[in-house]
This record gives sequence, structure tokens and C-alpha cells, in this order.
Amino acid sequence: MHNDTIVALATPSGSGAIAVIRLSGENAISIADANFKSVKSKKSLSTQKTHTIHLGHIRDKDRTIDEVLVSIFKNPNSYTGENVVEISCHGSSYIQQEIIQLFLRHGCRMATAGEFTLRAFLNGKLDLSQAEAVADLISSDNEASHQIAMQQMRGGFSSEIAKLREELLNFASLIELELDFAEEDVEFADRKQFKELIKRINFVLKRLIDSFAVGNVIKNGIPVAIVGEPNVGKSTLLNALLNEDRAIVSEIAGTTRDTIEDEISIGGMGFRFIDTAGIRETKDVIESIGIKKTFEKIEQSQVVLFLVSSVQLTASKSAVQPFIIEIEKIKNKFPQKKLIVILNKIDQISDVELLNLTIQLTAHSANLIPISAKSGVGIEQLTDALLNLINTGALRNNETIVTNSRHYDALLKSFEEVQKVQYGLETDLSGDLLAIDIRQALYHFGEITGEITNDDLLGNIFANFCIGKYLQIYDLRKMAYPE
Amino acid sequence: MHNDTIVALATPSGSGAIAVIRLSGENAISIADANFKSVKSKKSLSTQKTHTIHLGHIRDKDRTIDEVLVSIFKNPNSYTGENVVEISCHGSSYIQQEIIQLFLRHGCRMATAGEFTLRAFLNGKLDLSQAEAVADLISSDNEASHQIAMQQMRGGFSSEIAKLREELLNFASLIELELDFAEEDVEFADRKQFKELIKRINFVLKRLIDSFAVGNVIKNGIPVAIVGEPNVGKSTLLNALLNEDRAIVSEIAGTTRDTIEDEISIGGMGFRFIDTAGIRETKDVIESIGIKKTFEKIEQSQVVLFLVSSVQLTASKSAVQPFIIEIEKIKNKFPQKKLIVILNKIDQISDVELLNLTIQLTAHSANLIPISAKSGVGIEQLTDALLNLINTGALRNNETIVTNSRHYDALLKSFEEVQKVQYGLETDLSGDLLAIDIRQALYHFGEITGEITNDDLLGNIFANFCIGKYLQIYDLRKMAYPE
Repeated sequence: MHNDTIVALATPSGSGAIAVIRLSGENAISIADANFKSVKSKKSLSTQKTHTIHLGHIRDKDRTIDEVLVSIFKNPNSYTGENVVEISCHGSSYIQQEIIQLFLRHGCRMATAGEFTLRAFLNGKLDLSQAEAVADLISSDNEASHQIAMQQMRGGFSSEIAKLREELLNFASLIELELDFAEEDVEFADRKQFKELIKRINFVLKRLIDSFAVGNVIKNGIPVAIVGEPNVGKSTLLNALLNEDRAIVSEIAGTTRDTIEDEISIGGMGFRFIDTAGIRETKDVIESIGIKKTFEKIEQSQVVLFLVSSVQLTASKSAVQPFIIEIEKIKNKFPQKKLIVILNKIDQISDVELLNLTIQLTAHSANLIPISAKSGVGIEQLTDALLNLINTGALRNNETIVTNSRHYDALLKSFEEVQKVQYGLETDLSGDLLAIDIRQALYHFGEITGEITNDDLLGNIFANFCIGKYLQIYDLRKMAYPE
Repeated sequence: MHNDTIVALATPSGSGAIAVIRLSGENAISIADANFKSVKSKKSLSTQKTHTIHLGHIRDKDRTIDEVLVSIFKNPNSYTGENVVEISCHGSSYIQQEIIQLFLRHGCRMATAGEFTLRAFLNGKLDLSQAEAVADLISSDNEASHQIAMQQMRGGFSSEIAKLREELLNFASLIELELDFAEEDVEFADRKQFKELIKRINFVLKRLIDSFAVGNVIKNGIPVAIVGEPNVGKSTLLNALLNEDRAIVSEIAGTTRDTIEDEISIGGMGFRFIDTAGIRETKDVIESIGIKKTFEKIEQSQVVLFLVSSVQLTASKSAVQPFIIEIEKIKNKFPQKKLIVILNKIDQISDVELLNLTIQLTAHSANLIPISAKSGVGIEQLTDALLNLINTGALRNNETIVTNSRHYDALLKSFEEVQKVQYGLETDLSGDLLAIDIRQALYHFGEITGEITNDDLLGNIFANFCIGKYLQIYDLRKMAYPE
């Protein structure tokens, strides 16, 4: 199945100066060669050295499709470990398609989602958790998630797991050997050393399992609900947060603007801001649809920013009361959420008014931050408060962090089995029963690094590769005109 | 100005498996080297051979940004003719931006739109018309426009112009030499040979100027207005045209669907189909807004497809009459437009009914094509008719075709000046006056190939490079949050 030569567009679809088309497989170089004419050299691509670049034309019989640069990577020194050719052509969709179609006619098959990385895994260029990190790396959009993906791709905790698995495997062999000499009552596996190893494994597993809570937040961004009526300055606030940290909007213009969610990187951490309409009661109907939606969004968040305009609060003596009711309602309904009350537009009220408001509101919220989103006053206090809400210590100390839920599951299962082994050792369980538990633990360790795997698992992992969609778009000829 | 090192994303923005970042300039290799750590080699990138690829990490001090492949092209063997480095990184927007920012901090400048190609021109790697062809090539979306751009990029007519210019320059020198010996009445320039050259130049210029009409149509697609009410089968017809020729929709899904224009490639030619609402009078108001819009769209088109449902036409005895009025109205209002009446859904009427309709309609339209868009009957006749409307002979015969309006203008001006020279030769104009006209002609020739140029002209040409927008998108840090 994995002996054929695959082809796909490796760069994003659309127009650019150049695009890169990638071929991988035993015949990648010879297929490229058959449709390529070098400008300078008369040698065939197959006789060229690995890691060299060649200028020439991709030709379909007598028709020149494009002037291109062809990069050659020879087995095993390539991304997939197979022969790989990368064709750097002019970035027109038409040219990209013509070249891909040409190779499809000459013996290539269209790569499926993630198939290049799958081959890299199957050929031992990456372990499974490294292969998964490639997808994470591509979708990373802030410093923290990028750093974790990079660390994982370079080995990360899977090398630690692989090492522990090796040691555990060693003991498993010794204990199984004992079984062969059962009648002689020998002990090849030193029980003291074994107990120490299990202790070490337990320690590492526990640390990795605990890191998942932080890892998950880092990978997906921290959801923050902004509760506030129109005109209290939500947009200005988001802008201020963006500028304060010279932060990055997660997506190219257009995507985020369509939705009400915005991802902003603050101090290298991703925050997902979810806009809500507020929960102020305006009609007789107590729980209106709008309020229900706001509650749903708060439910999904970890942090609630309650944004109010100090101008509105000082408009009349009784103006504060409805907001206090709102704050109390949120506190009662969501005691577990972290609430920050933000008093905006403080540049438009007097110092005495501000002092008065602060006194009134502090009684109802320990976390009150007065700001002027427009002038930038107080924004730094706000970002500090947001960053303090999450434990970024682990990240700063370069500790390994688990972000992948598949790894988390396998770690939990490993931990469970190792506990059994530990209990078995303490209760002098017979070797044959101990061996079963050890084998189970080894199995779950192997799931992480990919030493133990199956086709379903691989299918699931690589089908979710984010590059898949770009491949599909490419099969334009199958596109029907929309009715 | 052009000695600094520039950097830009060369591939489309967005996420993909990989992205390519390009550096060009004297320090391109040393700047890359300062932020790169090879996996295998301890040699610096500067000491590596040209056209080689190196695996390693892009590092910002101690922080690894990404594992990348670095391709090295040494001056003058590169696209721009300068030292060029192409960095193939993982395709996350975050990584792309981090790497570009890193190089900006280390002495690179962000490239302006088209600047890589501008440098290629300034360094003599491409002449001006070839440089312009790069932009055409990237935006080409059908076989015909691609073929023309490719031909132009590989030399095309500019080499022919350059050769004629050379010969003309030769005569100019001889005639100017005569001026130095004016009192001795010598004739260095053979007038008979000169007349023959001018004749040849005239012939070539005329052919190129004439080709622009075809070239313009090929480059931009042939605009075809489809006049038809809802439910006469417009979508089905476009689908049928798409499938018949296994044609390509010009844009990735989404773009075309938003507009009512659709570009379909038929027989390698681009056709722009413009949907109109029809011009049937339904209210007392004779020229309604809808009809006015339809007329405007017909005005912009070269071909009008009048699509009717034969089911509707056979619904009653008087059903045909309103359509005949419509046809006549279009014929009267737009006598210069090519009109094709398409009788759709013929699978839903009897043969006798079809015969009757054909007789009635043929009297009003010489171009009547009965089809069933659903079953595909008649679609081939329609595509043949569409292709016959344009002179594709020139294209098939591989003749040079001018598509660029700047070239067209320069050719017209050259032609005008050459006419003057011809007239001067015939009327034995004095050498000094002749020389002025020749210089003018040479000037306009030079404008095409770029031998004569100025900063404004270059600025205009390269600012229109389609890759410009991708560069701009990239400066995310300047993006403000939308109010």
C-alpha cells in the first residue's frame, strides 16, 4: 500500500509568487525526471546528488507547463524517508493543477490528508507523537502553543517515555525469564531496583498527566467571555489589548471578523474572547433568549470580563444598582468562574466619581480594574490579571507539557497499570500475574510513541491533519457548478 | 537603494504543510546563516555550494523557531541575480511571521510588491516584458492565457523587437554619422536596405498590434451575457459546459460563488459568463431597473446567450410571442453583439413541438441551438459555436500575441514613428530630421524590452504585481481590531 508514489500541493492553495508540489515514493525522482528538462545539465535527475536544486522546465510532451526549480531528496535523507522531489513552480492555481494532473497521469497517486507525515512515521523518521506534533505546529498561532508543539516535535516527552519503556521492557523480560525457571525459584529481576524504577515511572507519569490541564488551555487558548452592553467599549478594549502587547490576531483578516470570537495573544498565551450581549433585564420576560445565550457563553469560558462604562454608572444615583444585580447574578450562577469587573471610560469621569464607584463596586467584586481602553490606562493591570489566572510557570520553566488528549488517555491508562504493578510488587504477586500487568503498561506506553499501533488509530490521527482540506480543494475537476 | 537585503513570504498566506520565505540581497546568505543551525554540517551556509539544500533550525538566540530546509542560490545564479536564500518552514502563520520578523530584526527589509522580479529585471535576468509576464503567468487561469504568458516569459515577441531595434539602431548610427560629414554629402546608410528594414518592421508591428484584439480577449476571458429568467436552466447549463470539457472554474470555491460571474475554460479559452435577469416586460413600467441592468451587462459582453425553456414556450399558443419580442429588442439595441438563442429542456417536449419552435424562432435568430443541459444533448454544438466566435487560429499556430496594454501602446507609438521614418525616406527627408524620427521609434521599442525606462514606469509595473496583496496581509502587527 505504501510503495506507490504520492503527489500533493504542499503550500496553501491560492495565488502567490511560488507554490511547492511534493512527490514522495520510490519512483518520485524518475517520474519527475520523465517530465522535466534541465536548463543546464544533460544528466538525469536520478544521477544528481541528494539535496541539490535544478532549474528547468516541466513539460507535458512538447508543451512547457512552467519554468521550475526541482529539489531532490534521496531515500533515506528526506522528510518521508523515501525519495522526495519538491517542485517549486510559479504560484498560479492553473499551473499547480496542470503539474499535479501531469504527475497523476504518469504514475503518481493523489496523497491523502497527512499521508506524507504518515509515511515519515511508518519509515521511522518520526515517532507517533512527533508526527502528531507536526499538525499542532502548523496550527499553532501563539508563542506558547508553538513552543509546546516544537518541543514535542523535537522529541519532547515521548523520548522520556521511550526510555522508561525500554527500562520497563528490560524488567519484563527478566521476570518472564524467571517464569521459564519457575521450579528453580530464581530471581533475575532485582525487586529493589524494579520498585525504584516503578517509583520513577509513577513520578514522571503523574507530572505529565498533571500538565495536561495547563497544556489543554495553552493549545486551545483560554476562553474569556466579555459581558457588556453595546457602546461600553468592547472593540476598543480588544484593540487596546492587541496593541498593548503588540499581539497577533489568530487568523488572517476575514475569518475572525465573521464570528464574534477573537483570539488575541497576550504574553505569548492565546486568549479566546467571546463577545456576549450582557444580561441586563430590559423586558418583563425575565430570562430572555439573549440572556440565555450569554449564560451559555459564560458556561464555556474560564474567565468572565464584566465590562461597564463609568459614564453610564455616574449618569444618575440609581444607575449603579442594576449592574450590581447583574454582577451578583453571575457570581451566584457561576461561582467557579473567575470574574473581573472592568470599569471603562474612567477618563470621562472625575476622580471623586471614580473613587465613589470603586467603593460601591469593590464590595461586590474583589477583582475590579478601572481602565480607559481609549487612552490605554489600566490595560497593563488587566493583562497582568489575565496572565495571573493561569499557571504559566511550567511553560516558563521549559517543562514538558502534554496537550494531546490521545496522549493524555494513554498516560492515564499507563499510570493505572503501573499502579497495579506497584501493588503487585508490594504484595509479592507471583511473576506470571506481574508480567501481565507490566505488558499492559508497556502497551499503553507504546501507544504514545507509536511502537504499538494499528491502522484505525493511524487513520484517525492523520485524517485530522489540518492540511487535508487543502488537498481536497485541489481536486477541482470534480467540482460541480453550484445549483 | 537596491543593495539591501529583502525578505518576503513567497507562498500564499494561510496554513499549509509548508511555506517558503525568500531572502534576496548581498547579505541574504550571511543573515540566514546567523540565525540558522545546521543539523549535520558544521560549515557555515556561506561556504556551501550554490543550489544545495540544508536541514537545520531557525533560531532566535536560544529559542528554536522551526526546523526548516534552507536552499542556497549564489549570485548570479538565482532568480534575482543576487544571493538568494529560500527557507522552507512549517506552514503555520505564526511561524511564517516569527521567521520574517527575525530577519527584519537582523538587517533585512520587507520586500515591496513585485520587488524580487524588479531586481531580476534590474540585474538583467529578465527583460521588462518577461518580468511583466511573470505576473501574467501567476494570474493565468486557463490554457490560452497561460500559454501566452509562458511564451512571453521565455522571450516571446520582445526578442523579435529587440532584434529589430538592434538593426534600426545600426541605421540610426550610420545616418547620424552622415551628419558629421554633412558637407561632404556621403551616404553611409544604404537607403534601399533601410527601406526594406522599415518595411519588415512595419510588417511585424502591424501583426503584433493586430494580435492585441485576440490577446486581450484571451487574457481577460470572453465576456458572455446569459439572458434568461429563473428556472430556464442557467445553472444546469453552466454545469454542463463545465463537464463537457472537463473545464476548470477560474477560482477556488467561494470567490466565484459570491458573484454572479463565472469563468469557465472551454477548449482552453476563458469565458466569463455574466448572469442577467432577462428583459421580459412584466409591469407597465417599460424600462424597469432590472431590464436596465441586463442591458448594461449585455453592453459589457461580446456574446449574448439568450436562454429559453422550450417547456415554457409550448405551454400555450401565444407563449412564444413575448420571447420573439425580447430577441428582436436585443438585436435592435445591440446589432454588433453576437447572439445565440438556446432552446433548453428539449427532452421535455415532443419532436413535433421542437420542429414547430425551431421554425418559429429561426426566423428571428440565425444562431439557434436546441439543447438539453440536463442530458448534455447539444452542449457540444454550443461550445463549438462559442469557440468559432473568436479567432483562435493565431493561438493554435503558436504565433506571438500581445496581451499587455502597455506593450500595445508602445507598439502603436513605434508604428506611428516608423511610418514617419518611412515617409521621410520616400520624400528624401534630410538626415537630421530623419534621425529624430528614428530615435523616437527606438525609444518606443526600448520601452517594451525595458532598455529605455524610468522609475515611474517601473513603479507602476511592479506595484500591480498580484503578489503584493499577500505581502501586505503579512504585516499583521499593524492590524487594528475592527471597530
